[in-house]
Amino acid sequence: MSKKYRLEHDLLGEREVDNDCYYGVQTLRAKENFELSGVAISSVSSLIDALAYVKKAAAMANLELGLLSSDVAHAICKACDRIIDGEFHDQFVVDVFQGGAGTSTNMNANEVIANVALEIMGFEKGDYNHCHPNNHVNCSQSTNDAYPTAFRIALHFELRKLMASMLVLQKEFAKKGEEFADVLKMGRTQLQDAVPMTLGQEFAAYATTISEDIDRVFETHNLVHEINLGATAIGTGLNAPTDYARLSTQCLRNLTGIPLKTSANLVEATWDTGAYMQISGTLKRFAVKLSKICNDLRLLSSGPRAGFNEINLPKMQPGSSIMPGKVNPVIPEVLNQIAYQVVGGDIAITMASENGQLELNVMEPVIAYNLFQSMKLLDKGCITLANKCISGITANREVCRKMVENSIGIVTALNPCIGYENSTAVAKEALETGASVYDLVLEKKLISKEKLDEILSPENMMHPKFISV
Amino acid sequence: MSKKYRLEHDLLGEREVDNDCYYGVQTLRAKENFELSGVAISSVSSLIDALAYVKKAAAMANLELGLLSSDVAHAICKACDRIIDGEFHDQFVVDVFQGGAGTSTNMNANEVIANVALEIMGFEKGDYNHCHPNNHVNCSQSTNDAYPTAFRIALHFELRKLMASMLVLQKEFAKKGEEFADVLKMGRTQLQDAVPMTLGQEFAAYATTISEDIDRVFETHNLVHEINLGATAIGTGLNAPTDYARLSTQCLRNLTGIPLKTSANLVEATWDTGAYMQISGTLKRFAVKLSKICNDLRLLSSGPRAGFNEINLPKMQPGSSIMPGKVNPVIPEVLNQIAYQVVGGDIAITMASENGQLELNVMEPVIAYNLFQSMKLLDKGCITLANKCISGITANREVCRKMVENSIGIVTALNPCIGYENSTAVAKEALETGASVYDLVLEKKLISKEKLDEILSPENMMHPKFISV
Amino acid sequence: MSKKYRLEHDLLGEREVDNDCYYGVQTLRAKENFELSGVAISSVSSLIDALAYVKKAAAMANLELGLLSSDVAHAICKACDRIIDGEFHDQFVVDVFQGGAGTSTNMNANEVIANVALEIMGFEKGDYNHCHPNNHVNCSQSTNDAYPTAFRIALHFELRKLMASMLVLQKEFAKKGEEFADVLKMGRTQLQDAVPMTLGQEFAAYATTISEDIDRVFETHNLVHEINLGATAIGTGLNAPTDYARLSTQCLRNLTGIPLKTSANLVEATWDTGAYMQISGTLKRFAVKLSKICNDLRLLSSGPRAGFNEINLPKMQPGSSIMPGKVNPVIPEVLNQIAYQVVGGDIAITMASENGQLELNVMEPVIAYNLFQSMKLLDKGCITLANKCISGITANREVCRKMVENSIGIVTALNPCIGYENSTAVAKEALETGASVYDLVLEKKLISKEKLDEILSPENMMHPKFISV
Amino acid sequence: MSKKYRLEHDLLGEREVDNDCYYGVQTLRAKENFELSGVAISSVSSLIDALAYVKKAAAMANLELGLLSSDVAHAICKACDRIIDGEFHDQFVVDVFQGGAGTSTNMNANEVIANVALEIMGFEKGDYNHCHPNNHVNCSQSTNDAYPTAFRIALHFELRKLMASMLVLQKEFAKKGEEFADVLKMGRTQLQDAVPMTLGQEFAAYATTISEDIDRVFETHNLVHEINLGATAIGTGLNAPTDYARLSTQCLRNLTGIPLKTSANLVEATWDTGAYMQISGTLKRFAVKLSKICNDLRLLSSGPRAGFNEINLPKMQPGSSIMPGKVNPVIPEVLNQIAYQVVGGDIAITMASENGQLELNVMEPVIAYNLFQSMKLLDKGCITLANKCISGITANREVCRKMVENSIGIVTALNPCIGYENSTAVAKEALETGASVYDLVLEKKLISKEKLDEILSPENMMHPKFISV
Repeated sequence: MSKKYRLEHDLLGEREVDNDCYYGVQTLRAKENFELSGVAISSVSSLIDALAYVKKAAAMANLELGLLSSDVAHAICKACDRIIDGEFHDQFVVDVFQGGAGTSTNMNANEVIANVALEIMGFEKGDYNHCHPNNHVNCSQSTNDAYPTAFRIALHFELRKLMASMLVLQKEFAKKGEEFADVLKMGRTQLQDAVPMTLGQEFAAYATTISEDIDRVFETHNLVHEINLGATAIGTGLNAPTDYARLSTQCLRNLTGIPLKTSANLVEATWDTGAYMQISGTLKRFAVKLSKICNDLRLLSSGPRAGFNEINLPKMQPGSSIMPGKVNPVIPEVLNQIAYQVVGGDIAITMASENGQLELNVMEPVIAYNLFQSMKLLDKGCITLANKCISGITANREVCRKMVENSIGIVTALNPCIGYENSTAVAKEALETGASVYDLVLEKKLISKEKLDEILSPENMMHPKFISV
Repeated sequence: MSKKYRLEHDLLGEREVDNDCYYGVQTLRAKENFELSGVAISSVSSLIDALAYVKKAAAMANLELGLLSSDVAHAICKACDRIIDGEFHDQFVVDVFQGGAGTSTNMNANEVIANVALEIMGFEKGDYNHCHPNNHVNCSQSTNDAYPTAFRIALHFELRKLMASMLVLQKEFAKKGEEFADVLKMGRTQLQDAVPMTLGQEFAAYATTISEDIDRVFETHNLVHEINLGATAIGTGLNAPTDYARLSTQCLRNLTGIPLKTSANLVEATWDTGAYMQISGTLKRFAVKLSKICNDLRLLSSGPRAGFNEINLPKMQPGSSIMPGKVNPVIPEVLNQIAYQVVGGDIAITMASENGQLELNVMEPVIAYNLFQSMKLLDKGCITLANKCISGITANREVCRKMVENSIGIVTALNPCIGYENSTAVAKEALETGASVYDLVLEKKLISKEKLDEILSPENMMHPKFISV
Repeated sequence: MSKKYRLEHDLLGEREVDNDCYYGVQTLRAKENFELSGVAISSVSSLIDALAYVKKAAAMANLELGLLSSDVAHAICKACDRIIDGEFHDQFVVDVFQGGAGTSTNMNANEVIANVALEIMGFEKGDYNHCHPNNHVNCSQSTNDAYPTAFRIALHFELRKLMASMLVLQKEFAKKGEEFADVLKMGRTQLQDAVPMTLGQEFAAYATTISEDIDRVFETHNLVHEINLGATAIGTGLNAPTDYARLSTQCLRNLTGIPLKTSANLVEATWDTGAYMQISGTLKRFAVKLSKICNDLRLLSSGPRAGFNEINLPKMQPGSSIMPGKVNPVIPEVLNQIAYQVVGGDIAITMASENGQLELNVMEPVIAYNLFQSMKLLDKGCITLANKCISGITANREVCRKMVENSIGIVTALNPCIGYENSTAVAKEALETGASVYDLVLEKKLISKEKLDEILSPENMMHPKFISV
Repeated sequence: MSKKYRLEHDLLGEREVDNDCYYGVQTLRAKENFELSGVAISSVSSLIDALAYVKKAAAMANLELGLLSSDVAHAICKACDRIIDGEFHDQFVVDVFQGGAGTSTNMNANEVIANVALEIMGFEKGDYNHCHPNNHVNCSQSTNDAYPTAFRIALHFELRKLMASMLVLQKEFAKKGEEFADVLKMGRTQLQDAVPMTLGQEFAAYATTISEDIDRVFETHNLVHEINLGATAIGTGLNAPTDYARLSTQCLRNLTGIPLKTSANLVEATWDTGAYMQISGTLKRFAVKLSKICNDLRLLSSGPRAGFNEINLPKMQPGSSIMPGKVNPVIPEVLNQIAYQVVGGDIAITMASENGQLELNVMEPVIAYNLFQSMKLLDKGCITLANKCISGITANREVCRKMVENSIGIVTALNPCIGYENSTAVAKEALETGASVYDLVLEKKLISKEKLDEILSPENMMHPKFISV
């Protein structure tokens, strides 16, 4: 009959650990210390995988440097592989909100990997003489290099995923840009009728803007390829052999396929959170632009009878518990909310970054929490918006066309022929009397009917040529 | 043999709903539409309870007004009671991030309650002729009054809980204020040595400041007692009988014990998010002050050999995977991170509030998400800080005393006797030569030894009397 | 012939000071150290007045306590009176951005007052033996109590002014609420047509919401009445006689007419920035609500031909350099921008507050800068919005009425008679065919013409009665 | 005798304009409409210059296209040259807070240039037949392309200036990095003693981090080289001849020397504020890192007797009005405050960006205000920090060295020899007994004296070699 608990000890003394658990005493303490959000670090699967990649790379380097025996190194590698394959994620139990710059996360990884490795080697969990969380799994490392390296690898994976989703959304907008290329409509500035354009131009602009955001995300994602593995505690590399940084980074590059490189200044790299701020700022930029686009979609689909009513969003769910037939633009609305969350997350990250001190920024866990949340919400938000909204949008062509014909703004096109002051007079009279610009211009004989028809033709409205006197 | 699915329909058509589910077609659509954060509304238990209270109060009022039969009303009430008792919370499945101003949450409640009520009456789930989510459960209501009313009731419960936890923390600080009342130490301004004080004064000040925050939270919690039940869609009360607002609010007051009252202007109350902003601002204020205090605790316990080392925080876990014996101030550190999250949440809430339009603010779900998160983190953070840090703090009395004796700042106490310019000269010489202020003042015969001893006595340092020439 | 420069010295040595200047060597150094924003503290006139009030009250208390001679005390008081009367404000030259928790501002005041007092007594500027900036003007004070006390007095004045301007705005909205009480229009939720209401209800709601904000500002303005005069450097009152706090506060109360009182815990009061955060949070709340209202005004006046076009804002200036006749809602637009600035200011204040350390928050100058800017912009913004926009708004009654008649949303009013599912069917058909709700309901014989006319009468739309089967 | 006023008219009617003014009726109205911050657009000199460059380039293109006569075009160019030379800046009087997306700024430029050109041609101000603000100066332009183009040119100039100042600061840090290369000190993580390093490494890391920020600012400054001149009102180029965009951009490139290019999608470019957000995010990143560094400087110089006291900042001004001899780190403190302002500005910019609508973002003025403020404060802040703080920092070598010798953290270096658990035991005993690590290790015979001396030698502490058993 197997015992239910095993005894483990650390700096603070002895504790019983449930024998089913692969984590050990330090994880147990951290779990109890941080009963806060209720969200465990296992919620970000790519971070757990990344920790395993780092520990495996370290073990391979340590083996080559003669710091680990072949048995132990191979057991550690095998344990890491199983984690990358999806096993043991439920053993990563510490809260995403935690003190200590990621020490609890790193020790959670060290302990789980040590115990899995022990079982692989045929020992019992907790029999740390054969494979110790600190001496073996964490060999040549500190939390302060292992954790941020894992964090950056996870960021790489998540940013890649996000860019793919942004591209899906970008393409849907581009498609609509083509589909609506011949829908003439009034452009609006400051919510006031301006001059004509096409609905296709509006949607193509959304596609363009998202392309630019993909470029910006791509640029920032390069920043995380610089890692500080080998820095150990504060960047001086204390306790890591000379070749360790080079070897472990090379292993990690091979394992992950990411073009990782060692920071030129490891002291700086150990406290610097600049890359996280840059990523967060770029995510915020994208979120804000997405929110602007969603605001536009809600404006353009306002109505159906007392609004702009230029486009129809696909109906996703009944809109009201009291108003029959009402359908709301729920998908753009939730994207707006995602955007506000991302902006809020950026402020949390900003404050966390500002509060780094001397050789370390201890606030990295809250930075990680918010970056992962923002990337996830934006990733899922892009796909949701693309598939549940943009792809199904239709245009109310007739409504759009009539608003152009009735508009006063078309008078702008006559400026080069009749001058700003004449145009102003026509516009003013049209507004006050309700008359049409077309009739007034003819009545006042400001221009010939032929020229007027040419200027105000749909063709010229959509693709204006410069027509002067 | 029972069927696995039932057919339900709504404005958009028919859908199969798993027959085990108490929610219906509208919830199903919302669930599918908002696959975003992965966090369901059931994560905030008090909001589910509050929805049940609102629906029960509505049913009672509708019964009295003759809008519901006794059978249906009683079944609805019973269903609500079971939810309040903790049943069916897992049926509240829509994502906390959702478009539509809470419609999905409200319909989730309407559908679950309708189906529970149907079973109570002996009918099958989905047999809505006998109890309909909209016609019966939502009778005389709109999402736009039912949801914010429930939200406010949940806020009341959560703020009460938070205040209790704040008080626990406040008391721990007050206790330490007394315990350390006789520990003489240097006060610091701008991190520069200033003048002496006691460690007790520092901790008592923390207790005072938290008392003030409790007062502020109490004030803002009164704001949520104003509700708009009876406003229906936009505050005009369309479709609710004249007496409904009064009756339902009375019922809700009785059921919850909260001194709820109807807003004076229901149109305004239906779009206004002022109370949420005020609460968030007050939570942010508290979070920021808490963060400041935690920064202080980390400064005062810095060391042990190369820092201030005036106090010892209880050791909660080993601090480093590489540095043996290192113990970090992990509890204050995580409180800092909680504070940053609360500040971030406030910005999300601010942007959501700014983007209300006309008769409604559709962004309430993201407001709710952040308020609930902030209250939870602060609530648990207070208890954690109180029990796992403050209560175990000890003072390094000797260290504190020696820093006072060695200090130059004590020269300030001599100002009234020897003047600012003489004091400045002494301070300057002490700094440059390393000599003590005491010796220099005697050497320069600026004051008698008796007077000097009196002024610089520990007693006078701790409780300064005004001693002039 | 008078000399052009006088020599002054301080801790750091000697410096020439232009003899025209009333400020002295410490101000000179601060002016040179902080060449940053280019905005001097004299830009906030009420702060300069408040400093003079504090210095006068201190002199009066010091006189009574025998710490100042009658001659010196009276000269200081007279100097302060002249500053309050508007003289010498140009001598307050240090930058609003400054290190040192306000020391430079306080010393600027001490030096100017000392030199004015010296001249009043018949001495030359710089002859500090007879009236010294530190020994006399700053007697019994520290920057750390004198500066925040002055700051709070200035806040009181500015908040009073702001509340008066908010009231002006509130009244304009209330007037329009009455003027438009009979303008029937469609209410909108989520930018989708909802149910009818009156334009007057919309504007009355704006008046209500601003009333509530005035209440909140009033509450927070009470917080600044608690001052820490007598706390000196860190709240222990070192170097101030026992009675000084009581006496000086009493004098200050009499001089300013503000119900000032001494904080219960002076140590806490010396570092606590809670009142500033609370004020900032409340200003932010008001700004955000104002922004929401301005968004509404811009929506409602969108058009003139391709928008909602329900109201007309007064034309304030031509709207475009290219589009003749275009007029833009420039006043609401600038109020939006003011709101964003206030939100930004709140974040600066939040971070400044979080970075207080131990016995002092050295970041008060940036807090002051942002609070004063926010109050000024909101104050002027309220008056501008009231006088240059709201007061001149007119309603397009016909446009509003027609949108109600054409709407589908009026079907909601039929729910109690025909049920949610019938109403949904009518709404759907109306939307798809373009038919009117009125005709469809009659055609389907869902209700008698008499009842239908009663329910859909303008009178019932504006003030709905509950009409069921 | 010259008349005092001239009559001008616009869409809204006639107004008297002071005949001394070069601006006209539209500027006058805008000036009166926006009495808000009291800060005129002339406060940003580079923006005024940039407007003149844009107007000159437009005139040159219009001349080539035959839209302006040679006389008028040359007069406009000459007028622009005089503005670039510094004349007439006081005529740019509209408030930086303004509605209308920059229309008032653009019209202010159009009117001033028209009137200067009129005088150049020998006409009277206001005689717009010969040179009209809209028809001639604004020819082929809209505010919506002319204003953002000018804004971007001004951003280019200001960002260049900022980068130069950042480099000055970077170099000072690098110099100190070399100067302090042999100062052994304790590194600290989480404010707890960690392992040894050199003071030079700390300062070199600051230099490195600022280099990276210069790189990031450089990248974002490229974004503003993309302009939308020729887009006119909404990006369709209405009223601008086909070749205008190409020609005017070419002229502007030649005039300014900036590698400007036309945006690929002018519709998008006309509403997109992405570049501003990216710049603001990058400024924020730099500000936050600067703030972190200043926090470090304040920590390292804390004391002089009760703090870390590792470095001395140059004394810039007496630090206290009450505490003689106290000198505060006022320069780092004001840099912190600048950083908070930049973060606040970023939020204002974020909200302004989110509130663009359809074809234009009307909130650009508040974006411009905050970007210019942030760049100015950071620019001056860098120079101030470099010259008034960093360059004068000295090290307390003895203090630094002693803290290393007394430290427990040096035990970490023994890990590879004696293992994590032995090291932990030594650390624990040292802490509890006050004994030194050195003595304890020898006493316990864990390692030979020779090896111990080798590991703990200053040389190995500063540049750790990996020394195992």
